[in-house]
Amino acid sequence: MTSSKNMKIGILTAGGDCPGLNAAIRGIGKTAALKYGMEVYGFSSGYLGLVNNEYKKLSVRDMSGILTVGGTILGTSREKPFKKNDYNKYIRSKPEQIKENVEKLGLDCVVCIGGNGTMKTAWKLQQAGINVIGVPKTIDNDIWGTDRTFGFDSAVNIATEAIDRIHTTANSHKRIMVVEVMGHDAGWLTLFSGVAGGGDVILIPEIPYERAVLKEYILKRYEEGKPYSIVVVAEGINVPPKKNGEKRNKSAGNYIAEIIQKDTGLETRPTILGYIQRGGSPSPADRILASKLGSYTAQMISEGKFGHMAASKNNKVVAVPLKEVAGKLKVVPADLPLINQARALDTCFGARL
Amino acid sequence: MTSSKNMKIGILTAGGDCPGLNAAIRGIGKTAALKYGMEVYGFSSGYLGLVNNEYKKLSVRDMSGILTVGGTILGTSREKPFKKNDYNKYIRSKPEQIKENVEKLGLDCVVCIGGNGTMKTAWKLQQAGINVIGVPKTIDNDIWGTDRTFGFDSAVNIATEAIDRIHTTANSHKRIMVVEVMGHDAGWLTLFSGVAGGGDVILIPEIPYERAVLKEYILKRYEEGKPYSIVVVAEGINVPPKKNGEKRNKSAGNYIAEIIQKDTGLETRPTILGYIQRGGSPSPADRILASKLGSYTAQMISEGKFGHMAASKNNKVVAVPLKEVAGKLKVVPADLPLINQARALDTCFGARL
Amino acid sequence: MTSSKNMKIGILTAGGDCPGLNAAIRGIGKTAALKYGMEVYGFSSGYLGLVNNEYKKLSVRDMSGILTVGGTILGTSREKPFKKNDYNKYIRSKPEQIKENVEKLGLDCVVCIGGNGTMKTAWKLQQAGINVIGVPKTIDNDIWGTDRTFGFDSAVNIATEAIDRIHTTANSHKRIMVVEVMGHDAGWLTLFSGVAGGGDVILIPEIPYERAVLKEYILKRYEEGKPYSIVVVAEGINVPPKKNGEKRNKSAGNYIAEIIQKDTGLETRPTILGYIQRGGSPSPADRILASKLGSYTAQMISEGKFGHMAASKNNKVVAVPLKEVAGKLKVVPADLPLINQARALDTCFGARL
Amino acid sequence: MTSSKNMKIGILTAGGDCPGLNAAIRGIGKTAALKYGMEVYGFSSGYLGLVNNEYKKLSVRDMSGILTVGGTILGTSREKPFKKNDYNKYIRSKPEQIKENVEKLGLDCVVCIGGNGTMKTAWKLQQAGINVIGVPKTIDNDIWGTDRTFGFDSAVNIATEAIDRIHTTANSHKRIMVVEVMGHDAGWLTLFSGVAGGGDVILIPEIPYERAVLKEYILKRYEEGKPYSIVVVAEGINVPPKKNGEKRNKSAGNYIAEIIQKDTGLETRPTILGYIQRGGSPSPADRILASKLGSYTAQMISEGKFGHMAASKNNKVVAVPLKEVAGKLKVVPADLPLINQARALDTCFGARL
Repeated sequence: MTSSKNMKIGILTAGGDCPGLNAAIRGIGKTAALKYGMEVYGFSSGYLGLVNNEYKKLSVRDMSGILTVGGTILGTSREKPFKKNDYNKYIRSKPEQIKENVEKLGLDCVVCIGGNGTMKTAWKLQQAGINVIGVPKTIDNDIWGTDRTFGFDSAVNIATEAIDRIHTTANSHKRIMVVEVMGHDAGWLTLFSGVAGGGDVILIPEIPYERAVLKEYILKRYEEGKPYSIVVVAEGINVPPKKNGEKRNKSAGNYIAEIIQKDTGLETRPTILGYIQRGGSPSPADRILASKLGSYTAQMISEGKFGHMAASKNNKVVAVPLKEVAGKLKVVPADLPLINQARALDTCFGARL
Repeated sequence: MTSSKNMKIGILTAGGDCPGLNAAIRGIGKTAALKYGMEVYGFSSGYLGLVNNEYKKLSVRDMSGILTVGGTILGTSREKPFKKNDYNKYIRSKPEQIKENVEKLGLDCVVCIGGNGTMKTAWKLQQAGINVIGVPKTIDNDIWGTDRTFGFDSAVNIATEAIDRIHTTANSHKRIMVVEVMGHDAGWLTLFSGVAGGGDVILIPEIPYERAVLKEYILKRYEEGKPYSIVVVAEGINVPPKKNGEKRNKSAGNYIAEIIQKDTGLETRPTILGYIQRGGSPSPADRILASKLGSYTAQMISEGKFGHMAASKNNKVVAVPLKEVAGKLKVVPADLPLINQARALDTCFGARL
Repeated sequence: MTSSKNMKIGILTAGGDCPGLNAAIRGIGKTAALKYGMEVYGFSSGYLGLVNNEYKKLSVRDMSGILTVGGTILGTSREKPFKKNDYNKYIRSKPEQIKENVEKLGLDCVVCIGGNGTMKTAWKLQQAGINVIGVPKTIDNDIWGTDRTFGFDSAVNIATEAIDRIHTTANSHKRIMVVEVMGHDAGWLTLFSGVAGGGDVILIPEIPYERAVLKEYILKRYEEGKPYSIVVVAEGINVPPKKNGEKRNKSAGNYIAEIIQKDTGLETRPTILGYIQRGGSPSPADRILASKLGSYTAQMISEGKFGHMAASKNNKVVAVPLKEVAGKLKVVPADLPLINQARALDTCFGARL
Repeated sequence: MTSSKNMKIGILTAGGDCPGLNAAIRGIGKTAALKYGMEVYGFSSGYLGLVNNEYKKLSVRDMSGILTVGGTILGTSREKPFKKNDYNKYIRSKPEQIKENVEKLGLDCVVCIGGNGTMKTAWKLQQAGINVIGVPKTIDNDIWGTDRTFGFDSAVNIATEAIDRIHTTANSHKRIMVVEVMGHDAGWLTLFSGVAGGGDVILIPEIPYERAVLKEYILKRYEEGKPYSIVVVAEGINVPPKKNGEKRNKSAGNYIAEIIQKDTGLETRPTILGYIQRGGSPSPADRILASKLGSYTAQMISEGKFGHMAASKNNKVVAVPLKEVAGKLKVVPADLPLINQARALDTCFGARL
C-alpha cells in the first residue's frame, strides 16, 4: 500500500438521489484531503461519468457548505456499465473504458455511493481489478450488511409528516384515507412511517395481505365509532394485473383504495406521496450517519480496505465485504419486534395471525 | 334586533376540510360567548347536521386550545340540502327540516363556514327565511368577494415545500419534474406555489397552454445548459379526453409529463400532491385571518347583519352580501401583475404573449 | 431618461439580514437583465461596499437558484456613510467616495435594500445627486409607506412555531412561560406571532403595560383552572433601568418573568428567541413579496422613478417617495382591529381598557 | 405472579417534559389494556400525584390519538418524595403515603417515566416494596443503561434547525455566532446537533476547552477567508464564577461569546435556545422508540419483571435492573468515534489533541 499522502481517489453517486448524498461526499472528501492528504476527484452522473471520463478535481472549498443541501452536487444516473445489451455499441466495452479512465487518472480507489444496484456494479468493478469502496444510501433501507442507510430517516420524516396531515382530512370527513409510500421490494419506509404516523392499517410487500382481513378490520373500527382509518401501503405490495393487456398495473394506493371502498361501502381516497419522499435537506440523523460513513470511508482507503462497503452495525461503523452485499436485499423480517409491538396497539397488517 | 345577550347561534363547517376551520370556530364562538354573551351550538358534518338536527352546545372550554389544530372539530360533509333529486326521498324537504330544526332550537343565526357551494346554500337558506352568515374558507382562494380565504396560505406553504423538495431530484437526475397542485377551476394555489417554488413552467386553468410552447421552452432551457425544469400544473387545466369511452381522464400532471417526455425526449416524472395540501396545522397567517373573520362574524351577528359573508378586503374585514357572492367564482385575472412579474423572471405560462 | 437597454445598476443589501433578501436580489437583477437589458452589479456588505468600491458584475446565472436561500449573497453591514463622527478619518468624506465610485462605474441607479436606517441613507444619497431606489425589508415590519415588508411573514412563522412548542411545556408543567420576540420599537412581530400562537398575554412597546393588570389576569386564569399561561413580549417594551449604574438593562423577557413569578407566586420561565427569528429560507409569502417588489424595482428604474421606495399597498406594488419614508417609523396603532379582536378572545395586552 | 388479566397498573411522568411522553403512555397503556387485559390508571404531575393520590382511570380511548401530541397528558413535576427536608411536614412520610395509596388502589405495578432523578426515586420505591418499572426519557440522552432515550432525536432536530438558521446570519454579517444548547452534565445534544448543523466549534462538558485554542482556531478560519464561525456550546460547560458574590453565573453561551469577541476582535453574538428544545410533536424516530419501549414495558409487567428499566440496546428492547441505573450518568466518552470523525472534518472541540 502506498502512503495515503499521495493517494488519488474518485467519488461518484449513482442510482436514485436521496437526502445525505452531499453530506457523504463532504465526509469522504474532506477527511481524505484534510486528514490523509489525498487528492479528490468527483465523477458526474454516477457510472456514466466513469465511462465517459467526466470528472472534476474537488477542492476542500468545493466540499464545504454542502452538509445540509439535498441531492448530489455530482449528479446521478441509473447507468449500469455491465449491462449486456449495451456492449456492442462500443468498440471497447464500458468496463474496459472505465478501467482505462481510472488508470489514466491514476486513481487508487473509486468510492461508489449508491443503493443495491450500485453495490452490485461496484463489486464487479473490484473483480475487474479496480479498487472500489461502496457507501450505502437509499430511502428504502434495503441494503444488506448495514443496519441503516442514510436517506431513510429523512424519508420517514417526510412520509410521517404527510400521514399526520392526512389524519386531519380523515377525521374531518370521516373517510378512509390510503397513503402510498415508496418501496418496491422492502417495506421499511412504509412500516416506520406507518407506525410513527399512527397508521391503522400498514401493508408491506413482506406480509401478504388478505382482502377479507382489511374489510373486517375497517368495519370493526367503524362499528367502534371510528368511521375513519389511515391505511399506509408500500408501492410494492402485490396488486392484481390489469385486464385487457393494459401496459401498467394500477398503483398499489389506488387499488387498495378501490377495494376498500367497494368492500366496506365507506368513502375512501388515495394519496400517492411520490418524489417528495426523496428530496430536500437531510435530517440531522442522516447528516450524522452520512458524515460518519464518509469519514470512515476515507480511513478504509488509507488502510487499503478495498472491495468493502462502509456500513453501520449496532451504531458502529464497520467494513463489510462487497462480495457478501452484492445481489442481496434486506427485507423486513416477519418476526421484527416492531411489528408485534404495533399489533399490540391494534395496528392491522392485513393478515390473520 | 334582540339584544345579543340572549342570542343563540349555530355554527357548521361544510365542504372540503382545510387548515383554519377550528381557528374560525374558536374566533366566532369565543367572541360570541365572551363578548356578546350568546349561546353557541355546533352542528356536526356540515349541512347534514342541520338537516338531521345533530348538534351539541359548545362551551368556551370546548372552543379553547383548538386554534392550532387542523381539520374541524365539528366534522364536515358535502351535503347539499337544496339539491333537487333528494327532495322526494323525504316526507318533508330538507330545507323544511332545517327550518323546523332551527326554529325548535331558537337559533337567531346559523354561521356557515365553507367554500363556494356552501355560500350558495347559505344564500338559499337566507332566502328561505333563516338568518345566516357565511364565512369563506378554501385552499383554492376562489371565493368571490374576499381577497383571501383562510386555508390558502397553509396550502401554498405545503405545495411550495413539496416543490422545493422536487427541485433536489430534478437537479440531481437532470430530469423534468411535473408537480400537480390542487385547483379545479382557479389557479391561485398553483400560481402562488409555482412562483414561490421557482417553477420554470406554471400552467393554470385561466391561461390555455400550447403544447408547442411547452416544448420550445423546455428545449431552450436544455440548450442553455439547464437539463432540468420544474413544471407546476393545476389539476384543472384542460386535458384531452381519453379514447375508447374510458371513464376518467388522465390526471393533468400525468398527461403533461407524458407529452413533455414525448415532445422533448427528456426524462420526465410526475408527482400528484393530493390530499396533503389540505391537512395539518394552519399557518400563522391563516390562524390570524380565521380569527379575525371569526371575531368579526360575532360582531355581525350582534348587529343583525344577516345574509352577508365576512370577507377580507385590503387587509380589512368587511361584510359582503351573500347575494353577490352566491354562484360566482373568483379566478386568476389574465392581467394579474404577479403573472407579468413572473414572466420577467423567465417563467413560462405555456402561452405565447 | 436613457433607454433602459444601456443602463447599469448596482444593488446592495444593508442592515440586519432577513429572509427574502436573495429573492429580492434575484427579482431586481433578473428582471433588469432579462426584460430591460441592463447590466447589474452587486456591492458587498451594504454601504461599506459602496464606500470601498467593492463590487462584482452579476450574471443571470449568479442570480439564479437563490430564491429559496436565506441571508444575502452580497453580504450586509450596519455601515452608515453619513454618520458624522466618521468624517474626519478620510481625506474625502464617505459620501464623496460613494459618488466618485458610482460615477466611475457609470451606474444609472443604486438599489438599496434595507430597513429604516437604509431608507434614510438612501434618501441622503439621492439628495447628494446619486439616483437610488429603496426596497424595504425587515422582520420588524416597521417601515413607513408599505403595508408589509418581506422577512416579516417568515419571522412570524418562526416565532409562532416556537410559541407552539412552548405551549407544550407550559401545559405539562403548569407554568407561566414568557417568550421574548424581536422588535425594539414596533410590536408587529410580537402581536402577530402572539395572536397566531394563542398567547394569553401580549406585551408590545405601543401599549404600556401595568404590572397589576398582568398579575390580576394571570391569577384569574389560575383560578379558572388554567395554571399555565403564555406571555409573549417584545424585546422593546419598557423595563426599569438596573440599579447601581449597571451597563445594560435586563432583557424584557427575563424582567417580565421575574415580576410575574414574584407577583403571582407561580413558577415562571423565560425564553429569548433571539437570532433564529431572522434566519433560514424565506416563507412562500415572503418569496412572492420580494420577487414582486424586485421585479417592480427594475420597472421603476426603466421609468426613471428614482428617489422612491418600492412598496406594497393593498396588495399592489406602488412607488412611494423616499422623502416621505425617511426618518419615520410605522408602529402598531392602538386602534388596530386585530387588537380588539384578540381582546374579544380574552387576550390580555397588559392594560386596562 | 398473578395472571396479567386482572392486573392493575399506574403510570406517571416525572421530571422535565419532553417529546414522546404521550407516545410512551399510549404504548404502555394500550398494550396493557388491549393485549394483556390490565386496568390502567394515570397519576397526575409525576410523583406528586402518587403522594397525593391524584389519579384517573385511563380508557383505551383516553390513550388514543395522543401519539403525535407533545408534552404529557398526565402532567409532570419535579417532586422528589424521598427528599429528606420534606419529611417533617407530614404526619406520615411521603413514601409511606405512596405505599398506602398504591395498596389501597391495588396496583400491581407503577410505571415511572422520567430521567435520571425519576429512575433513582423509582429504585427507592422498589426497595420500599412497591413494584415499579422505569421508562427512560430525556432530551439529554444521559441515562445509563440505554443507548438512546426518546426526546433526544426531537431535540436534536430542533437544535439543528436553529443552527441551520443561525448560519444564514453568520454568513451574511460575517460574524461569529454562539448557540447555547441544553445539557447540564452531558454533551450529547450539543454534540449531535453541532455535528448535524455543521458547527465549526463544539464545546461539551466532557471535553474541557482552552480559551487559547478557541482563539487560534477562529482566527485561523478568518485568515483562510472564513470570517464567520458557528460555535455550539452546551449550557453545562465550565464557566468562571461571577465576581462579587453575584447569585448566578453567566450563561455559557453569553460567556463564550464575550471571550471570543474579546480575544479575536471579531463581532460575536450569542443565542440561547432555551425551552423550544423540549416542546412540540415528537419526531418519527422518537414516536417509534417511545412506542416500542411502551409496548415492551407492558410485556415486562405481564412477566413480573419489576425493579427494571425498559431500555434500548443495539436497536433491541431489553430490561435493565434499576439498581444498576440509579445514581449513574451516561456522559459522552472522550473516545467516541463521532468526535474523531468530526475532528477529521476540521471541527474544533476547544482542546489540543
